[in-house]
Amino acid sequence: MNDDRYDRIRAVQWQGEHLRLLDQRLLPGEERWIDCADASHITLAIKDLAVRGAPAIGIAAAWGVALAAKQGEPLDEVLATLRAARPTAVNLMWALDRMKKRIAAGADADALVREAQAIQDEDLAANRHMGELGASLIASGSGVLTHCNTGSLATAGYGTALGVIRAGVAAGRIDRVYAGETRPWQQGARLTMWELVRDGIPAQLIADSAAAHLMKSGAVQWVIVGADRIAANGDTANKIGTYQLAIAAKYHGVKFMVVAPSSTVDMATGTGEEIEIELRDPAELLGTAGKRTVVEGAQAWNPVFDVAPAELIDAIVTERGVIERPNSLAMQAMFGC
Amino acid sequence: MNDDRYDRIRAVQWQGEHLRLLDQRLLPGEERWIDCADASHITLAIKDLAVRGAPAIGIAAAWGVALAAKQGEPLDEVLATLRAARPTAVNLMWALDRMKKRIAAGADADALVREAQAIQDEDLAANRHMGELGASLIASGSGVLTHCNTGSLATAGYGTALGVIRAGVAAGRIDRVYAGETRPWQQGARLTMWELVRDGIPAQLIADSAAAHLMKSGAVQWVIVGADRIAANGDTANKIGTYQLAIAAKYHGVKFMVVAPSSTVDMATGTGEEIEIELRDPAELLGTAGKRTVVEGAQAWNPVFDVAPAELIDAIVTERGVIERPNSLAMQAMFGC
Repeated sequence: MNDDRYDRIRAVQWQGEHLRLLDQRLLPGEERWIDCADASHITLAIKDLAVRGAPAIGIAAAWGVALAAKQGEPLDEVLATLRAARPTAVNLMWALDRMKKRIAAGADADALVREAQAIQDEDLAANRHMGELGASLIASGSGVLTHCNTGSLATAGYGTALGVIRAGVAAGRIDRVYAGETRPWQQGARLTMWELVRDGIPAQLIADSAAAHLMKSGAVQWVIVGADRIAANGDTANKIGTYQLAIAAKYHGVKFMVVAPSSTVDMATGTGEEIEIELRDPAELLGTAGKRTVVEGAQAWNPVFDVAPAELIDAIVTERGVIERPNSLAMQAMFGC
Repeated sequence: MNDDRYDRIRAVQWQGEHLRLLDQRLLPGEERWIDCADASHITLAIKDLAVRGAPAIGIAAAWGVALAAKQGEPLDEVLATLRAARPTAVNLMWALDRMKKRIAAGADADALVREAQAIQDEDLAANRHMGELGASLIASGSGVLTHCNTGSLATAGYGTALGVIRAGVAAGRIDRVYAGETRPWQQGARLTMWELVRDGIPAQLIADSAAAHLMKSGAVQWVIVGADRIAANGDTANKIGTYQLAIAAKYHGVKFMVVAPSSTVDMATGTGEEIEIELRDPAELLGTAGKRTVVEGAQAWNPVFDVAPAELIDAIVTERGVIERPNSLAMQAMFGC
């Protein structure tokens, strides 16, 4: 069922002697590629958000280690520098730990290149597999709504939630795709719409606050989102607005699907209540592109994530399989030690 | 209980020989006043959205008729031109009909000036009264969330939903005020935050999609919104996003209040299902200030209003009184012929 018509974007590309990254900060206005000639350049690209999305960051970092090995750089230093580039990205740590293990086992530069390639290939394969698993849950003729960007830009390719949408469109199950803007960063408006147009998937952008009205119209049967962390009971932290979508979906009988690699599951976190929600700079709401749009003196509250409780989730899809109506027991059975 | 500390803004001001309007298109960046020397200038200001908000539009139009009478213009023509300025604004028709009735009864220019002043004064008085009625429902120490702009800018002064918030703050009942951005026009970010800062009411701006997460935190006890049309069963059409807030409020046990003058109640409309929802230009979502921010080729779905069903509304407040848990019977008792 893999249909490459809907999978044309690769934002992280190994070129043999350097790493090519699509600069996500400039999308959709400009498609500018950055050629990273060494690990420090890759570190900078991660720090400055030229590459974003947890899996994509991990992959870029792995290539940074391989490139450093080819150039004879001190690998311990390179690992430490890359690790500090985005200290909260779990996939970054996971990818660097995997490279470190190979280094400790005496791998040479060529072997490290192969390991980075494996990390990238496995991410793509996991996304393809999740795409098939998720799409199989969707009845023919369905409409779907997604949030934020979970696509090729955020991963090795294809995407998590957006991978399910690609697979569902390719399989003829999904007829209508809607994307929320995702204030304040507009990842849905800027990045997801760019991917969908680029891949020729017809889609409609909506204001985040139009989602419930859309659901009432009957146009969507599934909300499909990614995840930043999934707790042991299935509670899922994701981009701000996800929780509101989950509540509105339940009210309308619209189904709610979470799609993420198993590395996103954190069995050490019991429930969503334990997940600390990062508050970011109010300036993100008070202006645009450095220009103040809200009156001076105004304050803003800017949480980046929220938690959709398991009771509002109909399916969690990872590359290991699907958990319907998630709870602690089902999560333990699939992800327990 | 009227506390003028929180009521300093008058966006429509009769100056004796001309009408002064605060240009809402430029807020909050610039506070520029427009002096309208004749009715055609007022018509233009209504058409071009320099003055917005249904009650404010009606008041400005009434002043247009009075000004035309003072200047000896043909009043039938003036009435027709003003009526066509915003053909869907119910309050515009209502105010012009009231002026027309006075003209038919032989009122002279001075009488028409008094009538326009009466329309303006009555709107302010209704808002003050609704403010007291609405605030009396709110327990001390409460937090509230509002949407769009329903304040002094949209009315003769004080506002509808924002009037309740002003009264609640003045009475010491409201401790915390939150305002949603209200994409895509950002009336909450641009106008409501401007009013609140201007009146010295501490408030926090949030992304529209952060509302449910805010409710979960326990910070808000009431959502307070205005209305564009209230059907005979209490279903309420209002700015897009209102419905989503009502669903999230119900899920969290947060109360939901609609505040609007009785002229907003349309007993000829049985339920919200009969209210046609206007779709506006997708360009409002695809760019900002004439600059494209979403990829070329992208489509958008841009409904301007949605309907909060009566089952999600805890109180409808008009100047005639409060209806708690609205239904057709209670609505008929207060607004039936």
